[in-house]
Amino acid sequence: MGSKSDLELMKGAADVLDELGISYELTILSAHRTPHRVIKFTESARDKGMKSIIAGAGMAAHLPGVIAAFTTLPVIGVPIKANVTFEVLDAIISLLQLPPGVPIATLALNGARNAGILAAQIIGTHNKDVEKRLAEMKEKMRQKVEAIADEVEEKGFRNI
Amino acid sequence: MGSKSDLELMKGAADVLDELGISYELTILSAHRTPHRVIKFTESARDKGMKSIIAGAGMAAHLPGVIAAFTTLPVIGVPIKANVTFEVLDAIISLLQLPPGVPIATLALNGARNAGILAAQIIGTHNKDVEKRLAEMKEKMRQKVEAIADEVEEKGFRNI
Amino acid sequence: MGSKSDLELMKGAADVLDELGISYELTILSAHRTPHRVIKFTESARDKGMKSIIAGAGMAAHLPGVIAAFTTLPVIGVPIKANVTFEVLDAIISLLQLPPGVPIATLALNGARNAGILAAQIIGTHNKDVEKRLAEMKEKMRQKVEAIADEVEEKGFRNI
Amino acid sequence: MGSKSDLELMKGAADVLDELGISYELTILSAHRTPHRVIKFTESARDKGMKSIIAGAGMAAHLPGVIAAFTTLPVIGVPIKANVTFEVLDAIISLLQLPPGVPIATLALNGARNAGILAAQIIGTHNKDVEKRLAEMKEKMRQKVEAIADEVEEKGFRNI
Amino acid sequence: MGSKSDLELMKGAADVLDELGISYELTILSAHRTPHRVIKFTESARDKGMKSIIAGAGMAAHLPGVIAAFTTLPVIGVPIKANVTFEVLDAIISLLQLPPGVPIATLALNGARNAGILAAQIIGTHNKDVEKRLAEMKEKMRQKVEAIADEVEEKGFRNI
Amino acid sequence: MGSKSDLELMKGAADVLDELGISYELTILSAHRTPHRVIKFTESARDKGMKSIIAGAGMAAHLPGVIAAFTTLPVIGVPIKANVTFEVLDAIISLLQLPPGVPIATLALNGARNAGILAAQIIGTHNKDVEKRLAEMKEKMRQKVEAIADEVEEKGFRNI
Amino acid sequence: MGSKSDLELMKGAADVLDELGISYELTILSAHRTPHRVIKFTESARDKGMKSIIAGAGMAAHLPGVIAAFTTLPVIGVPIKANVTFEVLDAIISLLQLPPGVPIATLALNGARNAGILAAQIIGTHNKDVEKRLAEMKEKMRQKVEAIADEVEEKGFRNI
Amino acid sequence: MGSKSDLELMKGAADVLDELGISYELTILSAHRTPHRVIKFTESARDKGMKSIIAGAGMAAHLPGVIAAFTTLPVIGVPIKANVTFEVLDAIISLLQLPPGVPIATLALNGARNAGILAAQIIGTHNKDVEKRLAEMKEKMRQKVEAIADEVEEKGFRNI
Repeated sequence: MGSKSDLELMKGAADVLDELGISYELTILSAHRTPHRVIKFTESARDKGMKSIIAGAGMAAHLPGVIAAFTTLPVIGVPIKANVTFEVLDAIISLLQLPPGVPIATLALNGARNAGILAAQIIGTHNKDVEKRLAEMKEKMRQKVEAIADEVEEKGFRNI
Repeated sequence: MGSKSDLELMKGAADVLDELGISYELTILSAHRTPHRVIKFTESARDKGMKSIIAGAGMAAHLPGVIAAFTTLPVIGVPIKANVTFEVLDAIISLLQLPPGVPIATLALNGARNAGILAAQIIGTHNKDVEKRLAEMKEKMRQKVEAIADEVEEKGFRNI
Repeated sequence: MGSKSDLELMKGAADVLDELGISYELTILSAHRTPHRVIKFTESARDKGMKSIIAGAGMAAHLPGVIAAFTTLPVIGVPIKANVTFEVLDAIISLLQLPPGVPIATLALNGARNAGILAAQIIGTHNKDVEKRLAEMKEKMRQKVEAIADEVEEKGFRNI
Repeated sequence: MGSKSDLELMKGAADVLDELGISYELTILSAHRTPHRVIKFTESARDKGMKSIIAGAGMAAHLPGVIAAFTTLPVIGVPIKANVTFEVLDAIISLLQLPPGVPIATLALNGARNAGILAAQIIGTHNKDVEKRLAEMKEKMRQKVEAIADEVEEKGFRNI
Repeated sequence: MGSKSDLELMKGAADVLDELGISYELTILSAHRTPHRVIKFTESARDKGMKSIIAGAGMAAHLPGVIAAFTTLPVIGVPIKANVTFEVLDAIISLLQLPPGVPIATLALNGARNAGILAAQIIGTHNKDVEKRLAEMKEKMRQKVEAIADEVEEKGFRNI
Repeated sequence: MGSKSDLELMKGAADVLDELGISYELTILSAHRTPHRVIKFTESARDKGMKSIIAGAGMAAHLPGVIAAFTTLPVIGVPIKANVTFEVLDAIISLLQLPPGVPIATLALNGARNAGILAAQIIGTHNKDVEKRLAEMKEKMRQKVEAIADEVEEKGFRNI
Repeated sequence: MGSKSDLELMKGAADVLDELGISYELTILSAHRTPHRVIKFTESARDKGMKSIIAGAGMAAHLPGVIAAFTTLPVIGVPIKANVTFEVLDAIISLLQLPPGVPIATLALNGARNAGILAAQIIGTHNKDVEKRLAEMKEKMRQKVEAIADEVEEKGFRNI
Repeated sequence: MGSKSDLELMKGAADVLDELGISYELTILSAHRTPHRVIKFTESARDKGMKSIIAGAGMAAHLPGVIAAFTTLPVIGVPIKANVTFEVLDAIISLLQLPPGVPIATLALNGARNAGILAAQIIGTHNKDVEKRLAEMKEKMRQKVEAIADEVEEKGFRNI
């Protein structure tokens, strides 16, 4: 991500990777302020064994695009909500609109948790353990909603 | 994809997978018209050895979301431009705005080619051959742009 | 509706149905987390005597569309305002943009009360009692506005 | 509808009602040019046995709202795409944003066919014959998509 | 205006008319809840000596359009900001998009004060006194800005 | 208006003023290219007997705002659709968003005809003849719609 | 800028010019309320030795456009966020959409600091000292981000 | 610019620089396909005597931002209209939304000619000859509009 202020949002990805027992590296990189460091980080990612790069960025959101220019690993883009203007669209558009040949897997604004799950799903395509943990996570989600539904149906919605 | 009319756009994904020597299955599924078939297809995808599902959909674009509800494979969503209204936003929003726990890797409108490349990148994380072919494709792209740039600089832009 | 947090908004529909003496069933269903339960609920709705299904949903708002895929009852969609991004458009678009053959009667954002009234109007097409109660509700609304208008005109707007 | 130029689009509703064997009345009414005629038409609709009113309107789209002011029948609004400006939003917004107490069942832009189906679904809530014809229409839709899917899967998408 | 809650905003028009010594009538009229009263008010406006009608309305904002359907007086529309959704566009669009032959002089959102000034300008086209008072108001506005500019230039912007 | 290419659209205002027997002056003025001429024209308008100024402008649409800065006559703004970008919003916003004290009566995009009618309505507030012609124009509009409606109802919509 | 309330935002430009040792003149000018003063200021700017004019403006944002009509100096436009409606787009559009021949160098909403840097960059094209100070400012920015990145990498993101 | 297909639009900048007798260098650079070449070009620009860099880019429009990351020269961004989606906003947003410290002087979509004029204005701040030619260009623009205005006023708008 591009600055320390993004940590609060982006750690949602780290949290879900911890829950799923997947190791990761987390750092600060700025496409406009530390461009050489971005290039160095990206070009060494595959050799370090990384399976995808999750890049969070707000406003003009160039970071994921610059990363995608220097690697063939899947790049997952997380638009971050900035404090000012265009609050919904700027980062999303900058991620979606990459040219043919340079895809970024874009998620919802502030979708760091889903970015972590997508990264795990990528690993899960070739790793039975991770796949199993993802299926358990999905099953728990289902059980939680069903429990609430059962409660609403049994007690009535005005009594909960 | 949801209808035969989407074939023209979605075959961009098939084309790039063919170029990269990756096998795939292509069919028609409608979230609103053949919902039971969608569920059957999705629940058997992993057992057939699929590594990701590329779903193209226009307008309310429910197909990728319904698929994501029934699998832990990475789901790649390709918004398709419909002929009427909201031409840019409807399908994109319906893909991006899935709830926490159900990510869809969203690409640009009509981004079928990039969807194919992303699917290949996912396989490339665990397959040296595919990774090598992706790197060659990226290098060819670079050479093509450089050749044009060299021509413009040598001949002058008014002479080409 | 998809989660307990939607209750606050959606109970506007229940309230107006209570006012009009119409019975209803209210529960929690998630298109992405409990998809099989959604299908079961929908396929049994007509046999239970239901005349329409009001589905509230936010963000990508797939719930009403999935319901509409499994029934020929009128489906009334209530877009729910989510806390983040696209705050106005995402749910509305996901409801409006269903394909030909699968209509959803869409209402304004957070329009649960109007959803209840529309459901009552549907019943009122074949039920004189309900129709009469709807007409009385409309007349009361008129009287209330006229009373205020009379007050403003008599006392002057600076004196109320 | 408000003018003869809307006939091309709005007859989609008439067509589907004909297919389903439901009788209807179709006319031209303008909220701004023949307001008295709109009121007269609306106030006599229920007595003529009408079960809902489908109103198509473009631009500021006042017609359905004015009709809803004078009846407790379900009013179904079909936004019509005008030739100029705001092409997507103006009519849709004018239909969705009615105040509490005056619902309009809004459909997609140019959604006349879906309006006819929704009107039929309303009648189908109290009419077994209409309900059966709606179910058959839905089943035919499913068969049509499945036939295409079967063809694509059997012949391969490059051979159709 | 359509409800008492609009008074706070709409009295800006009354205030400026008071400043300019122009008499007016202020009341509550709802296009959807008291439609007959709207028609009666509008059809008698010219005979009461009114020179224009300022109509404030939020959301679907039908009031000014309904008024314009029943008079040839200039109708001035003031979009009112509602609390929910489409906060900027809904009322503005509903005012701007009237069909040929039925103009509404639309102002900015919450532009009640400017509506009052425009109404005064209309009277000022045939009334020397009102015109003079408008010119004085404009001159005072200029003097106020110039006084601030002089202060900023003399003291420096960090000292005020 | 700002350029000869706007004539095609803006002459709609001239046409309706001719129909109503109202004299006018039509010229080309550019806020950015002939600013001094704009000021001179505006400051002499009232003395020439003008009752309002209709200004058409596209894109950033400064012309009506600059005119409004130099006169207390009613200024009627007609947004003109440019060939490129922001096609709907740019000119409209630039007209609506004038600051308090400087109103512009804004009309729909390409609304030159309605601008002419509004200008006539302003004159009609103090001129019985013009008012009568406006009422006749409105009545003819009504008759035209009613004639079409009668035809549709008598012959049926499939036979016209 | 157009009013004293813009000072808080616009002084970001003054601050960065102070940091870079560049002298400037700051005042209040209103395109709609003190148009003659705007013209006088602009026509004398080059003779006073000014190298560019930074104009901040909100809403319809005519100020920078009016200035650009009267000078051949580079004009830098800073859109200012107003309190109401169109919060993101109005000022930005009014700056971007100037006609051919009258460019405004537009920056992000509330981008006063970047306006100051751009003004300094313009001077830096012909002034080695200013160029050097700009390079130092850029280098400091880089060092600051790298220091944070180093800290995050060394301590781990959960320990800072 | 990023590809040969942008030449048609971007040569508007070259044309106006030729008209003003200013030399320039024009080439093809892709932020995502030839990133190393972009960096090399940018880092050598000032030493070659360049006074500003005009970068045209469409869609996600990263090129100007990447250039701005590597230079302290003024960077002028020209959004280019792409063929698909978000047609107005994507490139504009990606240029406007650069972070503090990295300004891009953004122009209108397809505003290559204005980019050339702005670049000339920057040189004109320190070059009397260029300034004089800019003033002549502005004067010719004025004369052209005045000539048309005179013609319209003399002959009448229906006779030209």
